[in-house]
Amino acid sequence: MPRPSEFAAVWLRDNCACAECRDPGSQQKLFQITDLPTELALSSETPVDLDGAPGWEVVWSPDGHRSRYADTWLAPPGDAEREDRTEETKLLWRAADLNGALPEGSWADYRQGGAVKARLLDAVAQLGFCLLRDVPVRDGQVLAVAESFGFVRETNYGRLFEVRVQERPNNLAFTGARITPHTDNPYRDPVPTLQLLHCLVNSASGGDSGLVDGFAAAALLREEDPSAFEVLSSTPVPFAFADRDTALRAHRPLIGLDPQGRIREIRFNNRSLGTLRLPGERTAAFYAAYRTFAELLLRPELCLDFRLGPGDCLVFDNTRLLHARTAFESSGGGHLQGCYADLDGLLSTRAVLRRNEEDRSEQDRAVLDLLESLFDGQGAAEYLGEEVTQAQHMLQAGALAQAAGAPPALVAAALLHDVGHLRGEVTGHDLMAGTDNRHSHTGAQWLARWFAPEVTEPVRLHVDAKRYLCAVEPGYVNALSPASVHTLAVQGGPMSPAQADAFAAEPFGADAVRLRRWDEEAKNPSAPTPAFGHFRPLLAGLLRARRRSAAPGPGPRVSCVR
Amino acid sequence: MPRPSEFAAVWLRDNCACAECRDPGSQQKLFQITDLPTELALSSETPVDLDGAPGWEVVWSPDGHRSRYADTWLAPPGDAEREDRTEETKLLWRAADLNGALPEGSWADYRQGGAVKARLLDAVAQLGFCLLRDVPVRDGQVLAVAESFGFVRETNYGRLFEVRVQERPNNLAFTGARITPHTDNPYRDPVPTLQLLHCLVNSASGGDSGLVDGFAAAALLREEDPSAFEVLSSTPVPFAFADRDTALRAHRPLIGLDPQGRIREIRFNNRSLGTLRLPGERTAAFYAAYRTFAELLLRPELCLDFRLGPGDCLVFDNTRLLHARTAFESSGGGHLQGCYADLDGLLSTRAVLRRNEEDRSEQDRAVLDLLESLFDGQGAAEYLGEEVTQAQHMLQAGALAQAAGAPPALVAAALLHDVGHLRGEVTGHDLMAGTDNRHSHTGAQWLARWFAPEVTEPVRLHVDAKRYLCAVEPGYVNALSPASVHTLAVQGGPMSPAQADAFAAEPFGADAVRLRRWDEEAKNPSAPTPAFGHFRPLLAGLLRARRRSAAPGPGPRVSCVR
Repeated sequence: MPRPSEFAAVWLRDNCACAECRDPGSQQKLFQITDLPTELALSSETPVDLDGAPGWEVVWSPDGHRSRYADTWLAPPGDAEREDRTEETKLLWRAADLNGALPEGSWADYRQGGAVKARLLDAVAQLGFCLLRDVPVRDGQVLAVAESFGFVRETNYGRLFEVRVQERPNNLAFTGARITPHTDNPYRDPVPTLQLLHCLVNSASGGDSGLVDGFAAAALLREEDPSAFEVLSSTPVPFAFADRDTALRAHRPLIGLDPQGRIREIRFNNRSLGTLRLPGERTAAFYAAYRTFAELLLRPELCLDFRLGPGDCLVFDNTRLLHARTAFESSGGGHLQGCYADLDGLLSTRAVLRRNEEDRSEQDRAVLDLLESLFDGQGAAEYLGEEVTQAQHMLQAGALAQAAGAPPALVAAALLHDVGHLRGEVTGHDLMAGTDNRHSHTGAQWLARWFAPEVTEPVRLHVDAKRYLCAVEPGYVNALSPASVHTLAVQGGPMSPAQADAFAAEPFGADAVRLRRWDEEAKNPSAPTPAFGHFRPLLAGLLRARRRSAAPGPGPRVSCVR
Repeated sequence: MPRPSEFAAVWLRDNCACAECRDPGSQQKLFQITDLPTELALSSETPVDLDGAPGWEVVWSPDGHRSRYADTWLAPPGDAEREDRTEETKLLWRAADLNGALPEGSWADYRQGGAVKARLLDAVAQLGFCLLRDVPVRDGQVLAVAESFGFVRETNYGRLFEVRVQERPNNLAFTGARITPHTDNPYRDPVPTLQLLHCLVNSASGGDSGLVDGFAAAALLREEDPSAFEVLSSTPVPFAFADRDTALRAHRPLIGLDPQGRIREIRFNNRSLGTLRLPGERTAAFYAAYRTFAELLLRPELCLDFRLGPGDCLVFDNTRLLHARTAFESSGGGHLQGCYADLDGLLSTRAVLRRNEEDRSEQDRAVLDLLESLFDGQGAAEYLGEEVTQAQHMLQAGALAQAAGAPPALVAAALLHDVGHLRGEVTGHDLMAGTDNRHSHTGAQWLARWFAPEVTEPVRLHVDAKRYLCAVEPGYVNALSPASVHTLAVQGGPMSPAQADAFAAEPFGADAVRLRRWDEEAKNPSAPTPAFGHFRPLLAGLLRARRRSAAPGPGPRVSCVR
């Protein structure tokens, strides 16, 4: 691990995260770079513990300011501050690379705001598009889709625009003519970085949509004809659009690069390319390169063809993907509604989803750590005179449940059935001394903070299950260990017939009975006993499933409060 | 003038403007670059007349397509396709350059949509800002200002955001603390390119606003420290902002250049600069350059200080200007409302205004050409037996009016008073032969297409004025020329006393009498006679004024119909 003194002092100080230097809420810096001492130097560095994580405390000269840095911050994972708008972080593709599997999902699942939404927004970031299915076929619905991840960008075409293909067209744009791959609104600056197209009607007998990955095409051009790439990425081109109320113009290269020379933005639209005025020889070179790129973009292997049906909504990166419409027969008609939006909002929503997911994983880890600590701590104590420890007993119960093919929730219940002994103020020893600690109830109640009834109910009922079995199964009591026989009396003895009937009617009564039999068996000092870690993935899965079922409805909305 | 064959053939053909190649309405191209023959060559070029303008017809091989190009298109004015977002077309400034004169105008004048609006939008394009005064102090009014030239850009702060300075602040941002020059939302990509701030309340005793021209500052840095400029323009920097619902990040250099190396975009905001991860030596170089630029931006001579009062709305280019708030005393409070918008919409609106202005100038030119042609054509004919031509007579009348200090409208009336003779089907000769051609009425009616009653009414009444003067001024008839005496009878002879009373009550009767006296006098073959061109500016001014008064209310709105 690197030490603070290995870094540039001013950079380190500029990143001080103390409450004096950064607003603890927004993480915004509270000082100017010009506020820092010009003679800034690290006066000491001392290893420190930062809430359980290793790190360093630095004292600065000349001002004596103290900063703390975690080791994980000094040496973060490789993509900590990765730029996410250039070719570098994208998955460039040709049609065949997608193997016919579109990045798609249903609107209903997407609206839950969880994994499906995160996956589809990831697809827009990585592949440049996603396809939402079963979006309600409703006027203006495309705006609701845009608002689900960001903000609509209004343009001269309105907040929403209509694309109609008519049987008797009155305008070329509404015919079945082929429209070659292009990006939209290149004459806008800033260009709308996202486009949405929502299909309301498609009764035409043909009329497929096409998408071309412009980043992949530009990368191909760079490979095949580096000088053409150089010309197109270094020549600002005028794009223009005019009508009665509009006179838009933008000057941008067809292939936009970032300062490091990485592909960052494609603009390609022959219809609105204005008049380029360059010295003669540069004009010829530009046109040769332009034609080469245009021909490359028309290669069939680059173009992903698919068909939008009613309810489909395509969301795509207008700085990267070119969209096209293949020619189709003139029978039937089609109606799409479209709108523009911006990538920054979409990427923010994706990052919030990911952060929430990470926060939850973090919480889950903390829960599992807590449970594990019970097994390691008090759990290591002897188990009411049995030949196994409390922890061994519970781990064996879990293993027996798993070996019996029990569902994960019941495995967890078996594993955790005696946590009430470990958590309660009235201990197992008090129980042995004649005071019922109701450990099944206190354990179930405590576990209910994180686990569903499928886990907690068998736990709650596992003592009653012993009283039930002793009532309904002649000889069951003989299977009990001496300690268990002893506690049976404190716990109320075998059930009366009425109690047994009530127990049998409990939704989780049968599960509790299964658990109980493993409970009796899990006291064998020579049986294989897995470590707690063996059960962590199973428990983590239950925590995630609980969260999903407990939080239905739309996911987090980007709010508009400053 | 260049010939078509001097240009790159493919460029020339790509710019063919025939109806087959371009949609006559939208001017969008109807063909792909790949549709053009690869062996394209100019087969012939022939000079042609294009609606009165010189140009060329080109025939292309191998396909025989014909294109026509005007000379003015082949050799346009230097700035025909000038890029308008880089330093090249801006007026870079330091505070003193503005001489205390802000580019400002009243909301009422701006809303007329004419010259004031064009001038203020020009100021945003050229200086980076303008200041609207007397904007209604009304909640949400700032959105109406944005919509007057473009579209609101909604962000995580909403369509509209509030900036309040409170007497008892609960948040640092709402204190009177100094806020150093910065651009907004650098963590957005695309960044909002315009910001609007509308002052509703400013009862604080200080609290000036500051603006710094970031293009000028960057140009200064390039001059003073070229290597710092190089570092800042070539290093993408992470900007970040996060709150509960937002996790925005953008990687952009502090100084953005276009592919030609011209300054195009400034992002500067220390508060949201994220963690830059570069190799050690590059980190140190970046920080040195960053500090140098930050210090430069704080130079007092760069910062234009002014104070926003209630009703002031500042509109500024967020890709160029940095805004600041100087510290102020804590008494009193302030309330601004702000929103974001984009430059492309503003520049489009400006271009439409300019195009309309040019169209109108074009129309005005056509009207003046038409009038001039009357003076040159029929006007050169003899004037009913007078010793001057019709044209000389009218030019002299105009000159006499001007010499008498008459207002422009009356000068125009004098100049144009006899156009009815030149336009009417019943000629002056018919009048001489005994048929009243009512030339005063037909002339006034014709002129009313372009001119206000101040011009047309004296024309309409100038024959009646002769009849009136002959009735009320003994001996006036003696001043008339023989031809005029002759036509007096055809026109109805001197007025009756009742007619004279009615005439005297006409709103423009007195003007008509003044005109009439110049009319009698303007028949002197040896008097100086100005050319028609002498009166063109005066007439053009009247045409413009008429248009303004005839078209009150809001100016052209950018519409949202595709």
